[in-house]
Amino acid sequence: MDSQEFREFGKAAVDYIADYFETIRERPVLPSVKPGYLGDLLPKEPPQTGESWQDVLQDVDRIIMPGLTHWHSPRFHAYYPTAHSFPAVVGEMLSAGFGCVGLSWIASPAYTELEVVMMNWLGKLLDLPEEFLNCSEGPGGGIIQGSASEVTFIGLLAAKEKKVKALMELNPDLKESDIKGKLVAYASDQSNSSVEKAGLLGSMPMRLLPANAEGKLTASTLLEAIRQDKNNGLIPCYVVACLGTTPTCAFDDLEELGPICNKEEIWLHVDAAYAGSAFACPEYRYLMKGVEFSDSFNFNPHKWMLVNFDCSAMWVKNAKYLVEAFNVQRIYLKDQHKGLAPEYRHWQISLGRRFRALKLWFVLKIYGVEGIQKHIRHQVDLAKYFEELVGRDKRFEVCTSSMGLVTFRLRGNDSLTQQLLEKVDDRKHIFVVAGRSDGKFVIRFAVCSRLTEKRDVDFSWEELLSQAEEIVPSKNKINTELSDKRSIASIELTDAAREKIRMEKSK
Amino acid sequence: MDSQEFREFGKAAVDYIADYFETIRERPVLPSVKPGYLGDLLPKEPPQTGESWQDVLQDVDRIIMPGLTHWHSPRFHAYYPTAHSFPAVVGEMLSAGFGCVGLSWIASPAYTELEVVMMNWLGKLLDLPEEFLNCSEGPGGGIIQGSASEVTFIGLLAAKEKKVKALMELNPDLKESDIKGKLVAYASDQSNSSVEKAGLLGSMPMRLLPANAEGKLTASTLLEAIRQDKNNGLIPCYVVACLGTTPTCAFDDLEELGPICNKEEIWLHVDAAYAGSAFACPEYRYLMKGVEFSDSFNFNPHKWMLVNFDCSAMWVKNAKYLVEAFNVQRIYLKDQHKGLAPEYRHWQISLGRRFRALKLWFVLKIYGVEGIQKHIRHQVDLAKYFEELVGRDKRFEVCTSSMGLVTFRLRGNDSLTQQLLEKVDDRKHIFVVAGRSDGKFVIRFAVCSRLTEKRDVDFSWEELLSQAEEIVPSKNKINTELSDKRSIASIELTDAAREKIRMEKSK
Repeated sequence: MDSQEFREFGKAAVDYIADYFETIRERPVLPSVKPGYLGDLLPKEPPQTGESWQDVLQDVDRIIMPGLTHWHSPRFHAYYPTAHSFPAVVGEMLSAGFGCVGLSWIASPAYTELEVVMMNWLGKLLDLPEEFLNCSEGPGGGIIQGSASEVTFIGLLAAKEKKVKALMELNPDLKESDIKGKLVAYASDQSNSSVEKAGLLGSMPMRLLPANAEGKLTASTLLEAIRQDKNNGLIPCYVVACLGTTPTCAFDDLEELGPICNKEEIWLHVDAAYAGSAFACPEYRYLMKGVEFSDSFNFNPHKWMLVNFDCSAMWVKNAKYLVEAFNVQRIYLKDQHKGLAPEYRHWQISLGRRFRALKLWFVLKIYGVEGIQKHIRHQVDLAKYFEELVGRDKRFEVCTSSMGLVTFRLRGNDSLTQQLLEKVDDRKHIFVVAGRSDGKFVIRFAVCSRLTEKRDVDFSWEELLSQAEEIVPSKNKINTELSDKRSIASIELTDAAREKIRMEKSK
Repeated sequence: MDSQEFREFGKAAVDYIADYFETIRERPVLPSVKPGYLGDLLPKEPPQTGESWQDVLQDVDRIIMPGLTHWHSPRFHAYYPTAHSFPAVVGEMLSAGFGCVGLSWIASPAYTELEVVMMNWLGKLLDLPEEFLNCSEGPGGGIIQGSASEVTFIGLLAAKEKKVKALMELNPDLKESDIKGKLVAYASDQSNSSVEKAGLLGSMPMRLLPANAEGKLTASTLLEAIRQDKNNGLIPCYVVACLGTTPTCAFDDLEELGPICNKEEIWLHVDAAYAGSAFACPEYRYLMKGVEFSDSFNFNPHKWMLVNFDCSAMWVKNAKYLVEAFNVQRIYLKDQHKGLAPEYRHWQISLGRRFRALKLWFVLKIYGVEGIQKHIRHQVDLAKYFEELVGRDKRFEVCTSSMGLVTFRLRGNDSLTQQLLEKVDDRKHIFVVAGRSDGKFVIRFAVCSRLTEKRDVDFSWEELLSQAEEIVPSKNKINTELSDKRSIASIELTDAAREKIRMEKSK
């Protein structure tokens, strides 16, 4: 394919994406395909000779589109959001278009240098302590990794490196493998699956300590676990605190946990994968008080900050431990600029690096600080609105509400809520997933798409109500009538909005 | 940014990329910026309010472009190639445009299913043993990972899982941490830095055994290392064999190493990161004879198969060991389709997954098997042509030549070749890097860009010659005259070709 054909193909793809987003609200959020559907639509072998790009794009529409779950539908409320914005998409495109690999400074200086500056911008946007930033005097710094899973694991390796070195310096007779066999890590049982996985990957038992009723890991629970383990000859090494847990978006208290970790010389890693983006708004920063006690901090702009996956921001107070854990030098990678620009390959698992800083730059430039704050606040407001709707119906109870996530259930036996979840997801008009809060089965309702508006929340709530009605018929006539009125109001709003779009299109 | 603005911005970006590639041959391959250049061009804080996309694109041109190393310049001969093709760029764009995250089958069925089929296509393209493929009856299968570094590390973890389980079944009194502390891995000292890093990441000492003069790990060396380690109470667990080493593209002999690993119950991983793409051509498949002895196999379509970074293909004979090493289940990830479609998150480090199969599909469809074979053969031919050129000048010696990589040096002391490398890279017309072959300092000349033609190899050789002339002036007048003629011929060719491009553009 020559550059002329690329111009045509690329522009057709741009239109395809734009068309997709203009019609996404009308699509059922979940696909109707059955496992194995795609294998039946494709030949068993690659084609011998090439096909035209027009054929390829038609196949995308015929084969791929029916098998997509529409994460950016305003009626997608599962998991947590994954970010999407047009500036980030163009950033990805240019990054692929340049197609360099930033395996060292000289391999493309702009790759390393834009990342250095972007991680400073981002750190300032969140008001992180200065010592985490690349622009600080000390050994701290920030880097873009691929995912929170990677980061939690990398933090664990750095913690291990630090602890083993420290103990061997104190007692040179100790065997490295003996120390490693005794290290232990901690997080709450509300932490993401990736935290447990980090323990598996790094051969360090990850103790998942019981959170309290609010989903938080308390100081007393952590202290007790540390005491027990030390009594049993184990060596506490790594704590992962969560700011915004996956089940309910609960926040561990860093001012409680931090001093314990510092005193016990345990590496404290902060996983703020989803909720970290909220710290762009000053009113939420109280939730990260005590962050200065931590050794590493992570949040995912690719979740809630409009930067497409993957873009996971990691800062460390002292990059030395990463570099020492990972540094393997080779002649073909000779590094001529030590100290002037970080060699990020020593901070991560892989050697190669994509130009992820570009999409982050595009988003920060085109949205600006205010645009990002507006996005966060709007989504929190929508979640609050949903919470209100649920709270008005006595058949339901709101279990938790934090940031853009509400968990709720039908009062009574768990099986009622399970039924509701199944009925709703089977209909594919909205997508929600299960959760557990304080031992109870709940439905998680996350505001995910940047396209979500009040009318979409209304739509989703009506959908939930209509299915709940079949499980727990409304006895309170007044409630039902109210809900009918809301329903009509929301349909009118939707139609009006649709008409507006239609008119704008026909301009 | 709304979808209309995205149409404009996206199409402008497509044109920007196309323009870049149409002018890439004329650009100095290495940038002239100094470390820290970019920090001076950007504000210290993110902008408060948003900027227009036109401003952003101008800034790309002003700030980013001068700091790129042009990996796809036909005069880039450093490292190994990183792949680039227009179909893959559009694949990346659409993947970002859809913006789903394939963290489970239901999270976007097309993501998992296209990957399953593409890994079958790719395995058939390389003629891998059936048992590695997803479409086989057994427990084998293929997955796209991010990099060979990740794959080598994941292979190591699976090997560890398998070995620990096997030993604990034999002897339930053994302690897991005691076994883990005794495991040891092997590769040759010619293996990529990522292999050593995998050992660091996985807390398993990676013994880098001396390769022979041809850069291969021999059976006797491996056997001796295993014997020694077993005598010292260690447990051999993992061998990484290289098909196409980084320094010289040497090939370990799997028919030699494989039976040893099988007999000793050591996991054999094959790292064919660069050269694996060549097995698309039947004439090179003799180099992977014995692959059936291996437990896992990896090559990077993102190196030599026209699929943009990242796309690292991994197959395992038995996926059970991956799943057992990584599986952490959660209620919000409830898996309803076990057995019908693999849950790839249990095969990898991260939870989230991009739609990398899409760009692979685009490349295989638009190039076809023949297009890929043509690309590989053309690049090997160009390397052979370069080898010929070097061989004609008595001041030089060709040290190795394999696939698209030639290593060479100035006869005599290493310092001559070192000088040559420095002079050439300082001029920035071409980019080559240092290597070491059989103990000697060499220059690695890799054919990297898909745009590279014979005239570019001529250009690069003239550039090397012109600088060599200043270090070792030619005594052989005839040689110099010949080389002058070649030089003129190549300049004429270049001008003619440029004229042709100009004419085509003005049509």
